[in-house]
Amino acid sequence: MISVVILGAGNVATHLFNAFDNADAIFVNQWFNRSISRLRSYKNKVEIIDDVSQLKDADVYIIAVSDDAIANLSKQLLFENRLVVHTSGTVNIHDLDKKNRRGVFYPLQTFSKSAALNFADVPICIEAIDKADLKTLKALAKAIGSKSHKVNTEQRKALHLAAVFVNNFTNQLYRVAHEITEGEGVEFDILKPLILETAKKVQNLSPYMAQTGPAKRNDKKTIKKHIELLKKEQHKAIYELLTANIQQTHGVSTGATAQSKKK
Amino acid sequence: MISVVILGAGNVATHLFNAFDNADAIFVNQWFNRSISRLRSYKNKVEIIDDVSQLKDADVYIIAVSDDAIANLSKQLLFENRLVVHTSGTVNIHDLDKKNRRGVFYPLQTFSKSAALNFADVPICIEAIDKADLKTLKALAKAIGSKSHKVNTEQRKALHLAAVFVNNFTNQLYRVAHEITEGEGVEFDILKPLILETAKKVQNLSPYMAQTGPAKRNDKKTIKKHIELLKKEQHKAIYELLTANIQQTHGVSTGATAQSKKK
Repeated sequence: MISVVILGAGNVATHLFNAFDNADAIFVNQWFNRSISRLRSYKNKVEIIDDVSQLKDADVYIIAVSDDAIANLSKQLLFENRLVVHTSGTVNIHDLDKKNRRGVFYPLQTFSKSAALNFADVPICIEAIDKADLKTLKALAKAIGSKSHKVNTEQRKALHLAAVFVNNFTNQLYRVAHEITEGEGVEFDILKPLILETAKKVQNLSPYMAQTGPAKRNDKKTIKKHIELLKKEQHKAIYELLTANIQQTHGVSTGATAQSKKK
Repeated sequence: MISVVILGAGNVATHLFNAFDNADAIFVNQWFNRSISRLRSYKNKVEIIDDVSQLKDADVYIIAVSDDAIANLSKQLLFENRLVVHTSGTVNIHDLDKKNRRGVFYPLQTFSKSAALNFADVPICIEAIDKADLKTLKALAKAIGSKSHKVNTEQRKALHLAAVFVNNFTNQLYRVAHEITEGEGVEFDILKPLILETAKKVQNLSPYMAQTGPAKRNDKKTIKKHIELLKKEQHKAIYELLTANIQQTHGVSTGATAQSKKK
C-alpha cells in the first residue's frame, strides 16, 4: 500500500485523486488546498485540510498546483527527508525545496474537468534524485494503470514542448478547419473521421511515412488554389509555412530549384 | 443491384474496388486502366480492360485518376447520357465531358496503399446535376457502409482545403514533435496517447472549447522558454504563428495591449 497526500485542487489534482481513490494499492491520506471550499464535495472520501501544519505522514506528497506556486509551497512544508514530487512538465526538479527528497510525477495527457480519464491512456514521466524514490513513483503509476517513463529534466521539457505541437497547435488546426467549413455552410462533422484516422495512422507509422498531400507531392496548382480560397491572412500564413516545412522535411525541390534542375 | 465500372488504378480506385467487391448490392462490371499490368492481381475477380471502346453498360462510371487526367479521360468515353463521376476534392463537376450525366463521389479520408479501410469511417461527399443520379450515388455510398453528404462544388473545395489542415498539416506537427523528442533521445511513443486523445476530444467538443495550453492562457514565461528550446528556425516560426492564431481566436490580449490596459 502506498500512502499519498495530494496538494492542490486543479484538474490534474482532481484526476489524480479519482484515480488514486479507485486504486487498490493506494491510500490517499489527506488532500490539502489553501481553500477548503473547492474540495467540499470530497469530504466524505478523504480528509480535507487547508493548513500545512496538519499534514500527516505519507510515502509521497504530490504537489499539483500551478507552475509558479510549486517552489513556494514546497518551502512551506514543515517536515523533511520525505518524498515530495510535483506534476509539472516544465518546472525543474531542483525548484522543489531540498529539505525533502525530490521527484517529478508528470502525466502527459490533456485534462478536462468534465471528461473522465482512463489512466491506461496517460503515460507518466517520472524523475527522482533517489533511486528508491523512482521505484515508488513507478509503483504509484502502475497502481493506477499508467505506463511510466523515466526521463531527465531536459527530456521532460522536450516532451512538454512537443505536447504543445501535437495537442494545442493540432487543435488550432482543427479550429481553422472549423472556420473554413463554417464559412461555406458545410458541417465540420464531415471532417471528424479524417481527424481520428490521421491520429490513428501515426500510432503504427512514423509521421514522416504517413505524410501525403499537395505539399509533399509539390502540386503547385492545388497549393495556389488553396491559398486563394483562404480568407484570413493568418490562415494563409499557416498554410504557406506548414507547406514549406513539409517540403523541407521531404526534400521537395520547390519552384526555382525544380526549374534550374530541368535546364 | 448497382453496376459499376472503375477507371484508374491508384489508391482511391483500389480501395473503392475492394469495398464494392465486398458489397452485396454492388456489381463491378469492369475495371479500366491504361496499363493493365497494374491490375493483374485482380483478374480473377473482375474483367480488366485497357481500351475505352470495350467499356460495357453500367449504372455508374467512376473516374478515379489524378486530377489533371479527369477531363481528358471523360472526353475519351465513346458513349453518352450515362452517369460518369469523378472522385476528386478539387476538380469542378463541369470539367467532366457534358455528353454524359455528371457527378462527384469524393471520399473524404486518408488512403494508404497498405492499410485496410473501413468505409463506415469514410464520409462520401456527393454531387450530381440530375436528382435521380444523386439518389444513385447515395445508394452506392450506403451499400459500402459510408455516410454520404450532398455538397456543392464550393463546399467540396472548402472540405478539401480543410482536410489539408486536419490531415497533412496536423501530421506535420506530429513530425515536428518527433524531431523534438528525437533531439533529446526520448521516445516519440510517449506522445501517442496524447495525439489520439486530442483527436478524440473534438469528436464531441468544438475545437474552440477543447483548446488549452500556454498560448490560450497567455503564459508568456512558458512561451518564451519553448521558443528558446526550439533549434530550427522554421519550428520557431510555426510556434509563434500558431500561438498568435490561438490568441486571436480566443481574444487573448498580448504583451503591449495588456500593458496599456493596465494603465
